[in-house]
Amino acid sequence: MRAAGRRVGAARGKIIPVSMHGELPRPDDWPNEPWRNSPQPNSGGWMGPAELDAIRHQVPLVYVDAIPVRTDNSGDVTAVGLLLRMGERGLTRSIVSGRVLYHERVRDALLRHIEKDLGPVALPQIPASPQPFTVAEYLPTPGITPFHDPRQHAVSLAYVVPVTGDCQPQQDALEIAWLTPEEACGDAAAAEFVGGQGALVRQAMAWIGRFG
Amino acid sequence: MRAAGRRVGAARGKIIPVSMHGELPRPDDWPNEPWRNSPQPNSGGWMGPAELDAIRHQVPLVYVDAIPVRTDNSGDVTAVGLLLRMGERGLTRSIVSGRVLYHERVRDALLRHIEKDLGPVALPQIPASPQPFTVAEYLPTPGITPFHDPRQHAVSLAYVVPVTGDCQPQQDALEIAWLTPEEACGDAAAAEFVGGQGALVRQAMAWIGRFG
Amino acid sequence: MRAAGRRVGAARGKIIPVSMHGELPRPDDWPNEPWRNSPQPNSGGWMGPAELDAIRHQVPLVYVDAIPVRTDNSGDVTAVGLLLRMGERGLTRSIVSGRVLYHERVRDALLRHIEKDLGPVALPQIPASPQPFTVAEYLPTPGITPFHDPRQHAVSLAYVVPVTGDCQPQQDALEIAWLTPEEACGDAAAAEFVGGQGALVRQAMAWIGRFG
Amino acid sequence: MRAAGRRVGAARGKIIPVSMHGELPRPDDWPNEPWRNSPQPNSGGWMGPAELDAIRHQVPLVYVDAIPVRTDNSGDVTAVGLLLRMGERGLTRSIVSGRVLYHERVRDALLRHIEKDLGPVALPQIPASPQPFTVAEYLPTPGITPFHDPRQHAVSLAYVVPVTGDCQPQQDALEIAWLTPEEACGDAAAAEFVGGQGALVRQAMAWIGRFG
Repeated sequence: MRAAGRRVGAARGKIIPVSMHGELPRPDDWPNEPWRNSPQPNSGGWMGPAELDAIRHQVPLVYVDAIPVRTDNSGDVTAVGLLLRMGERGLTRSIVSGRVLYHERVRDALLRHIEKDLGPVALPQIPASPQPFTVAEYLPTPGITPFHDPRQHAVSLAYVVPVTGDCQPQQDALEIAWLTPEEACGDAAAAEFVGGQGALVRQAMAWIGRFG
Repeated sequence: MRAAGRRVGAARGKIIPVSMHGELPRPDDWPNEPWRNSPQPNSGGWMGPAELDAIRHQVPLVYVDAIPVRTDNSGDVTAVGLLLRMGERGLTRSIVSGRVLYHERVRDALLRHIEKDLGPVALPQIPASPQPFTVAEYLPTPGITPFHDPRQHAVSLAYVVPVTGDCQPQQDALEIAWLTPEEACGDAAAAEFVGGQGALVRQAMAWIGRFG
Repeated sequence: MRAAGRRVGAARGKIIPVSMHGELPRPDDWPNEPWRNSPQPNSGGWMGPAELDAIRHQVPLVYVDAIPVRTDNSGDVTAVGLLLRMGERGLTRSIVSGRVLYHERVRDALLRHIEKDLGPVALPQIPASPQPFTVAEYLPTPGITPFHDPRQHAVSLAYVVPVTGDCQPQQDALEIAWLTPEEACGDAAAAEFVGGQGALVRQAMAWIGRFG
Repeated sequence: MRAAGRRVGAARGKIIPVSMHGELPRPDDWPNEPWRNSPQPNSGGWMGPAELDAIRHQVPLVYVDAIPVRTDNSGDVTAVGLLLRMGERGLTRSIVSGRVLYHERVRDALLRHIEKDLGPVALPQIPASPQPFTVAEYLPTPGITPFHDPRQHAVSLAYVVPVTGDCQPQQDALEIAWLTPEEACGDAAAAEFVGGQGALVRQAMAWIGRFG
């Protein structure tokens, strides 16, 4: 059974408050972690937005992308969950995406971001293997890869994650729309993604063998 | 929710009786399948053991191998399920393994063999993607690959499959032992496998990042 | 350096005559193979077309599919090689595809079929790992999977294979056309494939990150 | 043919001087890159060692790990290349490993680090797909994953890379030793790795199907 109190990083049995940005927990949130007492200065230290902004232009950041799906008994995907948000340029679709924190395992980042976007009872089946189906390289310059992020260079490990529980839009999301794999690959959906995430959804659908 | 009546192949909503060998359902089990009326003679026709034995020496057979695991909320594997059987050479460990039938999808074969070996309420999470973590080539001549099957040449698609339900040994299995990934890779366990399945378990543990 | 005389299966340093169908070498072609003397009756025995036709309706056959590509120094795909053939229904495009023989390793089958279709100096870089990018299930009934083969049920391990040498159309192929990944995924190309191979090319391009 | 002048990132036809650390090219090395004129302040700006040290304790860094191998015509691995270095704790073995720079593609980082460690004529076959065989998470705290780096948290995309040219030890490496897959997985070799790279070599060998 899954416990109601979810963990982030290596902190077991403790609910970690996650900020609006899902990116900036303070070190006091993990008072008992062994790495808190490691000899490195500023180990996992809290960063302010300005500090992170500076880093965004100096090194690529590690991200995870998750495409939430519903599957039947045979593992066949029946629906793909896409978030609908109101942005500056109107309604946009997106997948679950977010940064991996200092000292956080990839699988814990995946769980944290899915729960941040789909709610605490989405019950995701985080993959047993760290092998992603692809690596999406979001560059600040468009055209070098299919992916683009004007803010930063992000290297994102992409996973298809079946969810079995109840999914509710969180924070700034208006809705979670469940499309068939074919609809999710269609041109209508593709026009509503930004940064190349439509291409990533198509790559995911190709990987599961449901390319339209 | 998962229905109690499980399906094999494309037959939905119908419980298919599976023989002792899990390999020889008769065509009458699928009276309404469209391919029943296909123009090919003997399409999906029932084979007797002698017929299958002849084929075993003429073409490689398609198999699936499944390594059942328990995972935590983050997808980390906590235990590996190994079947314990009494064979001619004493107690042996094995993983879930079996043939893909004519006109059966790989994912349906995977589900069928897991339920045949672990029982009807094992609730396996069949992978969304057909990409296996490896392909195990069991040859009748030892030493060409790490895998060996004196009866036949089998090309087996290997998957790690999390199970969330209750697993009970079926048919000729005495027990399902749940080992840690490190125990499952250990020399003690390795000595009890046959045909190279110990190497396959190690490959699976390496793929999930838990190589001992 | 690669020898001019190519091998099939484990037969080194010997040119194996391959029939028009690329599927039916006779056992006499491998007089020195150890498995020739194995105790199994009919081990790897020669099959006539009628015998293979019967098997085609009884078990799924193991196939390999290869998408030949040209890459630059960074491994980025610059061109995809598609075979152009004149068939009953006019010109069709296809990828390299063929059966895995009894007692033949998957990697040897891959090499054999690439050389059969692209010529003996194509110099393919056969993947080091047996993990395919997908498994294509060609069923005799259309609509169950994206792949269809009216003759048989084939389970095909699909690989992207860079080729560095000179490729010449063999046998019944008229031409090898080199398209960009985007062209190979386009609707114009898609219309010229049969059996769903256009979907497989798109899956391959998605896997290499060049989905248009 | 491969040009003698190698590129880094998107800079074609230009030899980029790489520093001793292989990590700190100055932006003046890419005077014509479009992202040089992007509006972000400090875009891809040069970092001094102190600046990078600070970042090492704030975010995970993106790395690539490459296991160089020799393969035969069928893609089967015949030898694994391991670097021998003299470190503080005596002789150590290592694989090719290094950081992905701001605005550098993963495949270009892979090429750059392989040439940095194996020399300019190693002729690596960089994989066509960005899908790594695993993701190695090097944490500053030992025991959380199999990988450990006291300096930083690195998330490393791991690839097996066949090399076809001449490999010569560079910089501080004494030798490149070519071991069989079985030797590379052995306990003798394992004792000479640091940071868990021995486990990564075993994972690589398991992935190619040559787990000892």
